[in-house]
Amino acid sequence: MKAIAVEPGAGDPVLVDRPRPEPDAGHALVRTLRVGVDGTDHEVIAGHHGDLPAGADRLVLGHEAVGVVEDSNGTDLEDGQVVVPTVRRPPNGTNAYFERGEPDMAPEGEYVERGIVGAHGFMAEYFTSPSEFLVPIPKQLAALGFLVEPVSVSEKAIDHAVASRSAFEWEPDAALVLGNGSLGLLTLAMFDTVLEIDRTYCLGRRDRPDPTIDIIEKLGSTYIDSRQTPVDEIPGTYESIDLIYEATGYAKHAVETVEALAPNGVGVLLGVPGPWEFEIDGGRLHKELVLHNKALLGTVNSHRGHFEAAVDSLSQLPDWLFEELVTGVYGLEEFEAAFEQGNDVIKTAVEFDTL
Amino acid sequence: MKAIAVEPGAGDPVLVDRPRPEPDAGHALVRTLRVGVDGTDHEVIAGHHGDLPAGADRLVLGHEAVGVVEDSNGTDLEDGQVVVPTVRRPPNGTNAYFERGEPDMAPEGEYVERGIVGAHGFMAEYFTSPSEFLVPIPKQLAALGFLVEPVSVSEKAIDHAVASRSAFEWEPDAALVLGNGSLGLLTLAMFDTVLEIDRTYCLGRRDRPDPTIDIIEKLGSTYIDSRQTPVDEIPGTYESIDLIYEATGYAKHAVETVEALAPNGVGVLLGVPGPWEFEIDGGRLHKELVLHNKALLGTVNSHRGHFEAAVDSLSQLPDWLFEELVTGVYGLEEFEAAFEQGNDVIKTAVEFDTL
Repeated sequence: MKAIAVEPGAGDPVLVDRPRPEPDAGHALVRTLRVGVDGTDHEVIAGHHGDLPAGADRLVLGHEAVGVVEDSNGTDLEDGQVVVPTVRRPPNGTNAYFERGEPDMAPEGEYVERGIVGAHGFMAEYFTSPSEFLVPIPKQLAALGFLVEPVSVSEKAIDHAVASRSAFEWEPDAALVLGNGSLGLLTLAMFDTVLEIDRTYCLGRRDRPDPTIDIIEKLGSTYIDSRQTPVDEIPGTYESIDLIYEATGYAKHAVETVEALAPNGVGVLLGVPGPWEFEIDGGRLHKELVLHNKALLGTVNSHRGHFEAAVDSLSQLPDWLFEELVTGVYGLEEFEAAFEQGNDVIKTAVEFDTL
Repeated sequence: MKAIAVEPGAGDPVLVDRPRPEPDAGHALVRTLRVGVDGTDHEVIAGHHGDLPAGADRLVLGHEAVGVVEDSNGTDLEDGQVVVPTVRRPPNGTNAYFERGEPDMAPEGEYVERGIVGAHGFMAEYFTSPSEFLVPIPKQLAALGFLVEPVSVSEKAIDHAVASRSAFEWEPDAALVLGNGSLGLLTLAMFDTVLEIDRTYCLGRRDRPDPTIDIIEKLGSTYIDSRQTPVDEIPGTYESIDLIYEATGYAKHAVETVEALAPNGVGVLLGVPGPWEFEIDGGRLHKELVLHNKALLGTVNSHRGHFEAAVDSLSQLPDWLFEELVTGVYGLEEFEAAFEQGNDVIKTAVEFDTL
């Protein structure tokens, strides 16, 4: 079967031939439909993530997949069911985090991530997985199923942010997304449509005309150009923000978020920057957090419950959003196009097969 | 009646004569027993807090009080009941935060604080208060009632920290208190006795012999000298920490806390430092928060529910702790001694009367 693999840090993804996998007991065989491409894939290609699977010289890419059960193999799945795989797997048998259904909370060393670190991904015509890591989704969502994984990551982030404010009465009126990539735009749409937050903002650094600014404004949200209004000036120019979601990986945003928050607000960080030393007013940061009961959280990955919540959220978002957000779905013969980047590219996927 | 008042920033507290207050409708008259002294009082004396009450040239100090109801004045309190007053009051009538019992979440401008900013404190032979702000406590706790307010502040901090980890299974095995002042030591005892956390640590910068180190070790906790082991080296020298409670006001601790936390851990900040610019590795901080699901929260003040929880916690702490922690209770004729500071002073109070 065909697969898309890369030698991390040593070139572009290539098409390779691999044997079609046979499912072990408790595993199902899945025929891949579509696999999305995101920033993490580009980081993997550049060699910024960890080890290859033992003995491999290339990593099969892809962690945002949707497929159809080809052989349920005696598991509780059914042949023909449309499924989305979760990403993390236990490295040696299992561990407490996986046993309680919280692989997203496992520390380094207690997980591998398919298509990212230590395990092959889903960019292949077929893959196998323990059935517990395959989340059934409605057939009518099959074409958009590759968005379930990224949206699940935001479901977790929002879940943790809301929990952090659960010791008191908290109703966010204003929310801000830092970053106008596909995940930022999807999250903005969730704030607007699913959480029904009154006023939403999205920060980027693009000139008009721009397709992401078009989406932001069509959602009824306000575009903030970070070159004109830095994050810490947002309260002065617009308003203080109750809920800030960071998806830029720009480290100064983590600090500036505290300044942009309203009293009792929460900032949730998802970006993964490299080292960067800079000066801050640490006294002011500390005092702001304390005197206004502010919170700053990091979150990573997601668990099965977040995948299920993501299916629900996706089904509530408007069709036009997906039409404008998914800028390209490419067959295997032109898979390279799915890895191209640019201001006119928002979200792409590789299509391996159709239902 | 006698009261202890100060002209903030212009000298030491002095004994003044003030008219004994008359309770308005809905207010009770309280005969003061004891009022504790803490770091905030010293900040008020130094002039680091805000406005005096309208028209006043001196502020009556004191926000950690216990008293006995002298005249319940038709409220639901009873004469002779021992009560502890909460600190915040609405500045103009009331507002949403007070109406829902969460004055601690009110932003600046929506509260005054008795004895701190905008309202006279409790260091007087009598004070009045709306009965809703008077929390009855058992008579046998009367002598220690001035500890209810500071402990309530830690109850809130722990409450918010636990809430922030409530979206997943979290059982802290190791907890660290930054700061060996009286609030730090009380919180350490709560971690040990009330929360039953396995391993507890307390950070200070004192040489032995020292009475606070004695208390730390008598609690079965480990003393960490910050001059030998800075906060960010604690994981290497001791272990990574699940729950960190900061009560130093030292701004670098806020940043270093992230490094000292175990995966999925939470740091809760209570100190209120002034401005202080310094360099950080913001990229590393951001990445650590995200990849290990860490949280950093600030909390301030407390509400009535936290006062009630504090009464419960205090009743679980051992007697020897209070004997060693309360280093001085001084009558009005020697009230100045309660404001003295030094390595042999842990917690002091002024005694206005006895039951």
